[in-house]
Amino acid sequence: MDKRQPYSDEYYMDEAIQEAKKAEIIDEVPIGAVVVYQGQIIGRGHNLRETSHDPTSHAEICAIRAAAEFMGDWRLEECDIYVTLEPCPMCAGAIIQARMRTCIYGTVDPKAGCVDTLFHLLTEERFNHQTEVVRGIRQQECAELLKLFFRKLRKRKKG
Amino acid sequence: MDKRQPYSDEYYMDEAIQEAKKAEIIDEVPIGAVVVYQGQIIGRGHNLRETSHDPTSHAEICAIRAAAEFMGDWRLEECDIYVTLEPCPMCAGAIIQARMRTCIYGTVDPKAGCVDTLFHLLTEERFNHQTEVVRGIRQQECAELLKLFFRKLRKRKKG
Repeated sequence: MDKRQPYSDEYYMDEAIQEAKKAEIIDEVPIGAVVVYQGQIIGRGHNLRETSHDPTSHAEICAIRAAAEFMGDWRLEECDIYVTLEPCPMCAGAIIQARMRTCIYGTVDPKAGCVDTLFHLLTEERFNHQTEVVRGIRQQECAELLKLFFRKLRKRKKG
Repeated sequence: MDKRQPYSDEYYMDEAIQEAKKAEIIDEVPIGAVVVYQGQIIGRGHNLRETSHDPTSHAEICAIRAAAEFMGDWRLEECDIYVTLEPCPMCAGAIIQARMRTCIYGTVDPKAGCVDTLFHLLTEERFNHQTEVVRGIRQQECAELLKLFFRKLRKRKKG
């Protein structure tokens, strides 16, 4: 059991995975996120880039915007974000901008991950805020979702 | 005269400065941006963080979202963004996500700038896209706007 929340990290990551599955249904890359405050999910989001034609509508940005709207505040200082994939520079930047407490992610992004892989933006001391990082929660499930999605996509393109 | 556009970089930066001045009127940190496609401004934005309670509503994100909505596409590959202040990690990340051609900025951000100051995100070779950078256009005017804003803010807090 995680100390931050009444439920475990796995519980909230499963909710982020549910969001990722919503993206998959509408042919979006399956990435999902939830923002949690005092144990409660106050923002949900899934990747909507193709559907919305909005380059900023990654799962994290959608969840953060929903949470900030709910809170009536751009500061999400006591909030944690659960996301199935390691955040890109834009989303890591949004997590810093919202001054979030913890970022819990599922699986690494070897191409654009900016939390551990290419950069360590969330723990960068020169920024005015640092966010704690927890990694590898439901790693296999999060990675499998993406792997199957891209495998299907390749098959479809071939066929 | 700039080769990218029918007007000069200064012309478009002046439009971004107009956006920054809109932010100032409503007590937002005066930062403005415009997105240009084939010489035409197709997206405008100014910082709206306090007004909107949205941590992602920086000038660049607002302008990029407006431009993508106009184009009906998350890809802004032939587009250039003019912004009064060097982009933060979130906004630099959004410029990469939108695959923008050029980022033209006014003055550096010593605290969070991620184009030249703390990181060089836009020209990072490991990302799948690189954006050309032009710096220092209307530098003094862009810097002065911010300096005066923060000077007024400090006076108001004291008084």
